[in-house]
Amino acid sequence: MSFALDPGLTRSAAAILDLPLCTVLLKDDARWPWLMLVPRIAGLRDVVDLGAEDAAQLMAETMRAAKAVAAEHGVQRTNVGALGNVVPQLHVHVIGRWSGDAAWPGPVWGVDGKVAYADDARAARVARLTARLAP
Amino acid sequence: MSFALDPGLTRSAAAILDLPLCTVLLKDDARWPWLMLVPRIAGLRDVVDLGAEDAAQLMAETMRAAKAVAAEHGVQRTNVGALGNVVPQLHVHVIGRWSGDAAWPGPVWGVDGKVAYADDARAARVARLTARLAP
Repeated sequence: MSFALDPGLTRSAAAILDLPLCTVLLKDDARWPWLMLVPRIAGLRDVVDLGAEDAAQLMAETMRAAKAVAAEHGVQRTNVGALGNVVPQLHVHVIGRWSGDAAWPGPVWGVDGKVAYADDARAARVARLTARLAP
Repeated sequence: MSFALDPGLTRSAAAILDLPLCTVLLKDDARWPWLMLVPRIAGLRDVVDLGAEDAAQLMAETMRAAKAVAAEHGVQRTNVGALGNVVPQLHVHVIGRWSGDAAWPGPVWGVDGKVAYADDARAARVARLTARLAP
């Protein structure tokens, strides 16, 4: 079995960059700077299934993503979560949050609605994030 | 400034064990096996503020907690999250989940209600979890 992104993830997010372990996706929702990291390991579902070395690398890449998101304008807090109750393939969310955002202080998962990016706003966000993320 | 657990955490959870970096708390809610890990670093708020070595240790202890929770009866999935939108002190949630649980498939954060543990059920859970967590 070879690795492939779960269609449940790519339905609402698009890959923007590969890090050594993870493919990084940007969620299609302009309300937050929102990345997802997916380790390119076929069949991986839960954090408990990670080996120690992959876990350490996933954490290093998560920290990198958190710093990239935290540098976006207005971000006061980074939320990090691995849930997978809906899409089982292991994926780590990294989301920039601020007081008064569309879900504050609750979690963003399960919040109704979605705001599409304007093309140029998405391109500018991707350019900033990939520049900060690039190894 | 010395480290102390934020009262916002201990209002609904109690410390059960110290790992090398983190104090581990059990959430007072019998609906899920739910741990929180709090690095004993004074003033720490966000994952982006962690140094690389502490981040690696936090991940190792989070994996340990996830395996302890995953071994609880009925758990099908582990949710891991660092949010901190309500209580700013950095804390990592590790929660055992299953299809049909009280919040499934949504996140547990922000879900109404709470189910108190019976004393013996709490003691038995703490005994199992600490046995699996102990270094």
